[in-house]
Amino acid sequence: MSKRRLKFWGWGYEDQTLSEIQARQIAERISALTGLSPEGYVPPPKLSEIELSTPRLTPPCALESICSTSAYDRAAHTYGKSYPDYIRAYERDFSTAPDIVAFPETENQIIQLLDWADGAGAAVIPFGCGSTVVGGIEPVVGGGFRGALTIDMRRMAKVLEIDPTARAARIQAGALGPDLERQLKPSGLTLRHFPQSFEFSTLGGWIATRSGGHFATLYNHIDDLVESLRMIAPAGTVESRRLPGSGAGPSPDRLMIGSEGSLGIITEAWMRLHQKPTFRASSAARFTSFETATKAVRAIAQAGLWPSNCRLVDAEETKLAGAGDGSFHMVVLGFESSDHPVDAWMDRALECVRDLGGEFDTAGERDTTADAWRKAFITAPFKREGLISCGLMHDTFETSITWERLADFHVKVKTATEEVIQRTTGKPGHVSCRFTHAYTDGCAPYFTLHAQPTPGQEVCQWTEIKTAASDMLMREGGTITHHHAVGRDHMPWYSGQQPALIGDALAAVKDRLDPKGMLNPGVIVPLR
Amino acid sequence: MSKRRLKFWGWGYEDQTLSEIQARQIAERISALTGLSPEGYVPPPKLSEIELSTPRLTPPCALESICSTSAYDRAAHTYGKSYPDYIRAYERDFSTAPDIVAFPETENQIIQLLDWADGAGAAVIPFGCGSTVVGGIEPVVGGGFRGALTIDMRRMAKVLEIDPTARAARIQAGALGPDLERQLKPSGLTLRHFPQSFEFSTLGGWIATRSGGHFATLYNHIDDLVESLRMIAPAGTVESRRLPGSGAGPSPDRLMIGSEGSLGIITEAWMRLHQKPTFRASSAARFTSFETATKAVRAIAQAGLWPSNCRLVDAEETKLAGAGDGSFHMVVLGFESSDHPVDAWMDRALECVRDLGGEFDTAGERDTTADAWRKAFITAPFKREGLISCGLMHDTFETSITWERLADFHVKVKTATEEVIQRTTGKPGHVSCRFTHAYTDGCAPYFTLHAQPTPGQEVCQWTEIKTAASDMLMREGGTITHHHAVGRDHMPWYSGQQPALIGDALAAVKDRLDPKGMLNPGVIVPLR
Repeated sequence: MSKRRLKFWGWGYEDQTLSEIQARQIAERISALTGLSPEGYVPPPKLSEIELSTPRLTPPCALESICSTSAYDRAAHTYGKSYPDYIRAYERDFSTAPDIVAFPETENQIIQLLDWADGAGAAVIPFGCGSTVVGGIEPVVGGGFRGALTIDMRRMAKVLEIDPTARAARIQAGALGPDLERQLKPSGLTLRHFPQSFEFSTLGGWIATRSGGHFATLYNHIDDLVESLRMIAPAGTVESRRLPGSGAGPSPDRLMIGSEGSLGIITEAWMRLHQKPTFRASSAARFTSFETATKAVRAIAQAGLWPSNCRLVDAEETKLAGAGDGSFHMVVLGFESSDHPVDAWMDRALECVRDLGGEFDTAGERDTTADAWRKAFITAPFKREGLISCGLMHDTFETSITWERLADFHVKVKTATEEVIQRTTGKPGHVSCRFTHAYTDGCAPYFTLHAQPTPGQEVCQWTEIKTAASDMLMREGGTITHHHAVGRDHMPWYSGQQPALIGDALAAVKDRLDPKGMLNPGVIVPLR
Repeated sequence: MSKRRLKFWGWGYEDQTLSEIQARQIAERISALTGLSPEGYVPPPKLSEIELSTPRLTPPCALESICSTSAYDRAAHTYGKSYPDYIRAYERDFSTAPDIVAFPETENQIIQLLDWADGAGAAVIPFGCGSTVVGGIEPVVGGGFRGALTIDMRRMAKVLEIDPTARAARIQAGALGPDLERQLKPSGLTLRHFPQSFEFSTLGGWIATRSGGHFATLYNHIDDLVESLRMIAPAGTVESRRLPGSGAGPSPDRLMIGSEGSLGIITEAWMRLHQKPTFRASSAARFTSFETATKAVRAIAQAGLWPSNCRLVDAEETKLAGAGDGSFHMVVLGFESSDHPVDAWMDRALECVRDLGGEFDTAGERDTTADAWRKAFITAPFKREGLISCGLMHDTFETSITWERLADFHVKVKTATEEVIQRTTGKPGHVSCRFTHAYTDGCAPYFTLHAQPTPGQEVCQWTEIKTAASDMLMREGGTITHHHAVGRDHMPWYSGQQPALIGDALAAVKDRLDPKGMLNPGVIVPLR
């Protein structure tokens, strides 16, 4: 475990906290770009300012050494990293803190923890690194429990085996992105799963939440990289076979993938790896029309070229990222291979761009516009606390939709979000969009919103905005989430999106694997 | 519906029945290649020779017009197309025939049929076109039912909608391969799912059984081509959303895909399509060492080139197919695209071949060796009846395994199968192998066996051989099936392969969707 301590209230390590000056600079920059007016400054919370309730549970003696009831640990496991999480942390409200946080080092300890929780009447929250933006780990578990035990998996973080022939590795679920890659590095292999949360999320978290990663096409979700899984449920341990492919009944892995800690705790997985790429080509194309840019992404996604990067960033978001002046929409393109030069691939993709009137500079190993956007992408979550300190709302939501419905869908969702911001906050907001992933049959639009909420009414106003945007996603046939997961925040819409009988079926599965319903209650399977 | 009638006892249409002379020619050819000695000649059964029990059920008046109790319909829905199916048909034994065969034309009729079956205490067998080789549709349903109703989906065979922008179509489950492609043709789009059973299997059957298709890499299984599904279960109708991708909980589609009619009857699906390819390159490489040939397939599969064809055929099978003299193993290679010339792709694949010492002719649009193999592939099921008429056993089984275990696995499975044939029949058999699909982390070996069973003991000897081969697949870490499905024949091994708690979970799902357990009893969820 690193000696650097994670912020208990926000993104990143404590030493990455913004100063007031930095926060104001970020807010002013966004203000200049969006027309919003930052107001005041609220410093992030200090641990000494937090009042936590007395733990309702006492760890058992046998497990005491791996359990903590310290204020830091309890506070750091209260929230994820959503906008309302920040607001409540800034309000010094940690009333939903878990009673105990456990850090198991072995599967056997997990089994003991589950046994103990069963007897103690505790709810159990499986926890990776807490980067959820959908309330996935907040111990809001209904009235049926005597308290909440959070199981933090980060001490189970080893790469246990590497198979260079099949290019696969057996990896413990608690491994953070950088640590996992560091352990793989000597083999020349890489998982190449780089969600925005890469530094602050774990393999187990990615699998449990169907994380979307590096690849804009083809292997979009972590789902496809899973060769087999091991999961501990209250009813016992589940382990699937290592198989490159199978046709033996409904996929057992696909039942566990996306279960968000509601069926069991994923402890390890055999993951499909890639050879480290040595050939690269990158470019950024510019389009004056958003619709034409979407056509280019569609053409490339349907061409069978499978670029690793093929992301449309609209003019507003390009400007926000410092990669443009707002006069063009950008399509970031990248190809990579460990096996062969990718020129033929990039040439054809750029032909698609040219056919649709897009402009681009000659493709190189790296592209500066694409680089600027990438940097903005990685640093965005860090900057968020600056905006929030200065009274601005910043949030993102994402979905997917088939191509033929996209144009109309995009306008409706963007407009509905702008309208609800105006109606709720009384001030115009700013809504931008990019596509994070592209498929042959559609794409994953990702919306970013900035608004200026009324001080003291942030959570309430955010809820109204979130509700209106989510209602529109559902009404127009999208998914409530493409890769942010369901958590507690998305449950009302997820329950509507899921065919009712599939909801019943998942409840039945939970009854078998987690008969007391103690695992992440209220997530995926509604509270009864 | 075509006026040509399907054989009630084997592969293809009645007008495709082999004459005695043709059957003997085929058997003699195989005999010359394998050293087996065909014996005698048993003609295929005639309907007049079949004695069927009196139906135990009477169709309800309201559904009479879509129900049949004719001898042909009952006999034609008794068996799939496995070796023991043929043998029992040749023995004129149709004792497991369904009592009624229904041909619904609407979902409403399916609902009525399920309601009626519920009241009548009938088991229900969903039926596509009966090409199962694993006992997937034989009405052997345990003692808990008053009879069996087979629901044949072939009157629901329309392409209902085509979406050229997202390249997807809504297709009814009963569409046979050729009919489905014929309806898509005017749009220039194609599903490009060509299992060996293409002519005699349906979309619904492919989805229910996780069929493996045209593409040797990338989109191997039908699973990946499914955008959304509609399924009627006794408990109600399930319909998933049309989405290009989603991260909202465990995938509902993946729970229905592979359920083999045990959870509901798939009635339609939105399927992802391809533009008809216009660029093609094909080649066949020759290797003297099987191990080196596997290395070439692995190199190509791991290179990110995604050939549509990349199939290793071992020397014995190459010879059987008339594509070689038994001195070399063959790797059939193909690339195709609707978007761009595929030369760069094929050039690199052939470099991989050359690096490993493989020989090949210059790649062309079509390759004659590859063509010879393809023809043998398509006609193989037709020839089978000739072998069986002349007293030879012919069977295939398939699996998947990760690359690092392949060499040992291949030898063990081949040897075990050869040994059990010798032990059981008292005569040497012939076992050959090809890889049908290749993944980055492994491949799908497909074994073909020829043997000379003792007349009168065919089913019993087949059972011993099947059992020994399946035991070895399981012991060595393979899957009991990569794309033939589970059916009744594979249940003992499937139950062992599936993690026990996943088996419990699927039983729980069945309880919710099919509370009386009347759908395809004994398949996927064991009989209680």
